Amino acid sequence: MLSFAIGVDLGGTNLRIAAIEETGRPLETFNTSTEVKRGRDFVIDEMCRVIQVLSSKFSHTHQFLGTGVGIPGIIEMESGRLHSAANLPDWKDYPVKAEIEERLGSPVVLENDANCAALGEKWMGAGRDAAGLCMITLGTGVGGAFIFRGKIWHGMIGMAGEVGHMCVAAQGPACGCGGRGCLEQFASATAIRRMATEAIRSGNASGLANAIRNQELSAKVVFQQALLGDRVATQIFETAGVALGTALASLVNALNLPMYIIGGGVAKAWPAFSPAMYRELRKQSVVFRAGEDEHTHVNRTVITPAELGSEAGLIGAARLPMILKDSHHCSHIRVAAQIA
Amino acid sequence: MLSFAIGVDLGGTNLRIAAIEETGRPLETFNTSTEVKRGRDFVIDEMCRVIQVLSSKFSHTHQFLGTGVGIPGIIEMESGRLHSAANLPDWKDYPVKAEIEERLGSPVVLENDANCAALGEKWMGAGRDAAGLCMITLGTGVGGAFIFRGKIWHGMIGMAGEVGHMCVAAQGPACGCGGRGCLEQFASATAIRRMATEAIRSGNASGLANAIRNQELSAKVVFQQALLGDRVATQIFETAGVALGTALASLVNALNLPMYIIGGGVAKAWPAFSPAMYRELRKQSVVFRAGEDEHTHVNRTVITPAELGSEAGLIGAARLPMILKDSHHCSHIRVAAQIA
Repeated sequence: MLSFAIGVDLGGTNLRIAAIEETGRPLETFNTSTEVKRGRDFVIDEMCRVIQVLSSKFSHTHQFLGTGVGIPGIIEMESGRLHSAANLPDWKDYPVKAEIEERLGSPVVLENDANCAALGEKWMGAGRDAAGLCMITLGTGVGGAFIFRGKIWHGMIGMAGEVGHMCVAAQGPACGCGGRGCLEQFASATAIRRMATEAIRSGNASGLANAIRNQELSAKVVFQQALLGDRVATQIFETAGVALGTALASLVNALNLPMYIIGGGVAKAWPAFSPAMYRELRKQSVVFRAGEDEHTHVNRTVITPAELGSEAGLIGAARLPMILKDSHHCSHIRVAAQIA
Repeated sequence: MLSFAIGVDLGGTNLRIAAIEETGRPLETFNTSTEVKRGRDFVIDEMCRVIQVLSSKFSHTHQFLGTGVGIPGIIEMESGRLHSAANLPDWKDYPVKAEIEERLGSPVVLENDANCAALGEKWMGAGRDAAGLCMITLGTGVGGAFIFRGKIWHGMIGMAGEVGHMCVAAQGPACGCGGRGCLEQFASATAIRRMATEAIRSGNASGLANAIRNQELSAKVVFQQALLGDRVATQIFETAGVALGTALASLVNALNLPMYIIGGGVAKAWPAFSPAMYRELRKQSVVFRAGEDEHTHVNRTVITPAELGSEAGLIGAARLPMILKDSHHCSHIRVAAQIA
């Protein structure tokens, strides 16, 4: 009998839930219209209701392993509390894991959403064959996650992966984090929009100014203009690419991981930013160049767009109870050995 | 019966060998006058001779576990060959491990010297209580090493730890690696000397110019002048501190490790560069600030000078066969469990 688990993607705005088989096959996906802003108790009620429907539905044909929940915030792994979450203010210090586990009567694993996305890409996406990887998510902000030796790297206080706040330009724009010239100030959707706004205001971006007569300014519009050959839009994505290449060079030099996955909405603009990204990375990283075959020019360090899009977090969340099961299995073996 | 192992520190100029007990107590240290530039075969002969003397001397009272050799170069861990080593040209592609193991008839483990130093600090130095750490060595160049979950992190092709080539100033001085503004261009002994030379040539550093009338210009002289309150020397170490703080901020943000150890000769100038380093780190790293207790201001992320000085590499090298023994022990348990 195959097993399955349920993944929950608790975003700042929406709640998505899926039952996924251990093979990676999605059994059923539930895109609730639940508005997360209606508050914690409402969301927990709805989440538990859907999980119970899905878990009983497939428990006739599959073994149910539990539920993984991806949350955009810092999680205390030991206690299963949410330490902080900018977009979920009323969830702070709430014992999420204990509360849901009690209602469901089955195992619940919490994880930061960026880590879930990396786990999803590792399991079913771009990172399938990688022993270790770093995922960088270019969205409203820039997030990140690391997988070393097959396991998520949380860091000492669960804050590993803040690659969006790596400094790529000492004299760059001020960042909300208190620093200057953070990667997020160049390679997030917010930064792309800011750079475009600045260019339009300066009067030097007639193409972009025309483009936003009938639509709102967004990173997507800037990308469309870059594809049409607009000079300013092209330059904005080159700036983003150079910043990303600089951050990647530092990561590749320091960690020499086999794979770096670029995800998030802005990653769709890959053709516009990746040439500058690769150029900067090759220039700044002796370790990247060392991985390049001198004849074929194939590089052993893989930089690649994500494959699962916005599904990555949901898929990764469902993976969490499966990993838990595997690690329990290992510790049983060790205990058995000690007894023997 | 306690066990012991032998550590070898094969530097670019000297060869040092020590027998160290599993408790960390040094049994005997052998500072040979072997000149490494006399070539590979000469060095291997001398190394094996000393190892045999030491191993038989203590084998009456201790169990001998093997030899660990720290080498300044990139090592193919599987084959035990030296992939490349800038200061040991005739060792390239040489099967060091196989050759020494055959002569000695006991286990030999090779490791990069920066990794050995980190392992030494983890075992007997500043990193004793740290679950994971990053060590940055400020010497002629700037090197580094990572220990995650107690184990050295080698990276995909053994090149992890090149933190000296993290970019800290996009428009900074060109580096030998091909990049620009690498940490090494600000925080190595070579960089300190270069900045001092530039200041003297510009005619704006009378204090430094006077100081080198009777002695050669070195990072140590610049540090002495900084201690005496010389403005230019102080500024040079502030520049080094800002660069180090910038690199640390990126590492802390990305990895959230509990400890970062600063070693190498330049680390002795801690009082001169660390205030600027901490200031920059606090400014640029949201993760560092999150680790600070709001009342006591004690930070859970520890940045600390190394404790073992130039002994770290030797001690870490001797640790290698002890770790090998422990990991064999674990795999025996696993095999036993599978059979049971």
